[in-house]
Amino acid sequence: MNSVLNLPGMTVKSTELLNIKDYLGEKRKLVDELLSRYIPSASEEPRTLHAAMRYSVMAGGKRIRPILALATYEQFRPDSSETDSSIGYIMAGLEMIHTYSLIHDDLPCMDDDDLRRGQPTCHKKFGIATAVLAGDALHDIAFDLMARSGHTEIVRELAQAIGTMGMIGGQIADVEAEGREVSKAEIIKIHSCKTGSLIRCSVRVGAILAGAERSTFESLSQYGEKIGLAFQIIDDILDVEGSQELLGKKVGADNIKGKATYPGVVGLEQAKKDADLLIDEAIELLDDYDDNMLKHIALFIGQRES
Amino acid sequence: MNSVLNLPGMTVKSTELLNIKDYLGEKRKLVDELLSRYIPSASEEPRTLHAAMRYSVMAGGKRIRPILALATYEQFRPDSSETDSSIGYIMAGLEMIHTYSLIHDDLPCMDDDDLRRGQPTCHKKFGIATAVLAGDALHDIAFDLMARSGHTEIVRELAQAIGTMGMIGGQIADVEAEGREVSKAEIIKIHSCKTGSLIRCSVRVGAILAGAERSTFESLSQYGEKIGLAFQIIDDILDVEGSQELLGKKVGADNIKGKATYPGVVGLEQAKKDADLLIDEAIELLDDYDDNMLKHIALFIGQRES
Repeated sequence: MNSVLNLPGMTVKSTELLNIKDYLGEKRKLVDELLSRYIPSASEEPRTLHAAMRYSVMAGGKRIRPILALATYEQFRPDSSETDSSIGYIMAGLEMIHTYSLIHDDLPCMDDDDLRRGQPTCHKKFGIATAVLAGDALHDIAFDLMARSGHTEIVRELAQAIGTMGMIGGQIADVEAEGREVSKAEIIKIHSCKTGSLIRCSVRVGAILAGAERSTFESLSQYGEKIGLAFQIIDDILDVEGSQELLGKKVGADNIKGKATYPGVVGLEQAKKDADLLIDEAIELLDDYDDNMLKHIALFIGQRES
Repeated sequence: MNSVLNLPGMTVKSTELLNIKDYLGEKRKLVDELLSRYIPSASEEPRTLHAAMRYSVMAGGKRIRPILALATYEQFRPDSSETDSSIGYIMAGLEMIHTYSLIHDDLPCMDDDDLRRGQPTCHKKFGIATAVLAGDALHDIAFDLMARSGHTEIVRELAQAIGTMGMIGGQIADVEAEGREVSKAEIIKIHSCKTGSLIRCSVRVGAILAGAERSTFESLSQYGEKIGLAFQIIDDILDVEGSQELLGKKVGADNIKGKATYPGVVGLEQAKKDADLLIDEAIELLDDYDDNMLKHIALFIGQRES
C-alpha cells in the first residue's frame, strides 16, 4: 500500500485476491503486526501490565473491526487525501478497544469467564487488578492512536460508539437482562449497542478517513449497523449449535448463564432468517458500487462458523 | 468570560479576586456546572450507570486539575485564538478522568476502599460491575470532550498522561509496592506517575489551548510536574497527621494497608521540607510572569489541610 506501513498485507490489492478467506487471512496478519507495533514490549516497565495487554491482544481473533475500517478506506479514499499510516493507527486502535471490552467483560464481576479463545482469560492469568488496568491502558492507547489520525471527528466517533449510548450501554443492559425475559426489541437494542456500535463505528471511521461523501457515508453507516447486529445474532446461534473446536470456547454458555440471546427470544430458525435478511440488506445498500470487499465481508459474516 | 459557557465562575476575572480560596471556591462551582452539563442525566437510559457516574463525579473534591487548566489558559491565551467553550470541555474531561481513576482504584481488587469523601465508594453503592463500567464510561466521555476542543494534540496529551507510562503505570507500581521497602527514587517515580502526570497534563493542555510559546510551555510543564509531586507528598503527610474531619476519610490508612508513602521512605520532617522545596521551585519557574493565579495555586497546594 505504501512505504509508511510497509507491512506484508498492504502489498496485495483487494481486487487481486482470489477469495475472501485469503483476503481476511492476509489482513489479519497486518492487524497483528500493527498491534505488536503499538503496544509497548513486555520488556518495558510496567512489565506485567504490558505483558497482560499483549497477552490479550495477541491471543488472536477475527480482527473483523480493523479489517472493516481498512476495506472501507480502500474502497472510498480519494487518491491523495491521507497518509496511509493513519489507517494503520485506526485499525490498531479499534482492535485494542475490542480487546479492552473483552477483558472487562470477562471479569468475575461481569461475565466471569475463565477461558477466551481457548486460553485463560486475562484476570485468570494475571489477576483481577492487572486485568482491569490492562483494559484501561488499551483504552488509552486506542484513543492516542485515533488522535494520531489527525481527525478529532474520528476520536469522537469512537468515544460515542463505545460509551453509555453504545457499547457500555449494551454491556450493562446485557448484565441487567440476565435471568429474565426480554422482548425482541430489547434484544435488538442490546446487541446493536453491545456489538453493533463498534462494528458500525469501524466502517464509519474508515469512511471519514477516506473523505467519503455524505450520502455514501450514510449508506456505509447503515451497512455497518446491519452487519453489526447480524454478527451478534450469529454469535448467539453459534453458541447454540456451533463447533466447540472451531469456536475455542464452550458452546451453550449463554444458556447456562441465563443470558438474553436472539435465538432465545425468536427461536433458532427465525434467528437464522433474520441474520440472513440483515446481510442481504447490508449488501443491497452497496448496490451502487462495483463488486467490493465490503460485500464479501458481509457474506463472510453471514456464513461464519467461528 | 463569554456567552458560550455562561456560568457564574466565568464572570469573575482572576485578578479581581481577593484571595485564592475565593477563587478556588468560585471555580469549583464552575467545574460542578460543567460536569453536570456533560454527564447524561440519571433519568436517561442506562439509568443505573448514569446515576453511578453522577454519584461519583458530583461527590465533590478539590477540582484542582480543571482549575489548573483554566488558570493556565486564562494566563496565557492570546485574545482571539479559541472559543471559550473548549476550555470548558477540557476542564470537565480532566475531572472525569480523575474520577474514573478513583472509582477503579477503590475497587476490591485494587485499594478496596469503602469510603471516599465520607460517602460509600461507587462499588459499595452500585456494585462492582456498575462501578467498573461507570469508570469506563467516564473515560470515554472525557476523550469525547477533549476531542471537542478541536485539537488532536490535546487528546494525545491526555492519553499519554494516563497510560502505562503515566497514571496507570503509577497505579500498578503502587499496588506492586504494597508491603515492601521502596527507595526514594522509586516513591518519586510512583507518585510522579500516579498523581503527578495528570496534574502536569492539566497545565499542559491549558497551555496548548492557549497557544503558549514553546519556552513558556516547557516552564509550565515543569511547574506542573513539581506541584503534581508535591500534591501527592502532601497527601501522604495528611494521611499521617491530617484531620479526619477535614479529609473526609480515615487517617493512617496508608500505613494499615502497607502502602509505600513518601514520609514512610524519607521521614515526616524531610517530606515536609521536600514538598516546600518543590512548591518554591514551581513558583520560581513562573518568575518571568507577573503575579498570577498559578503561583497562588502552588502556594495553596503547599498549605492545604484537606
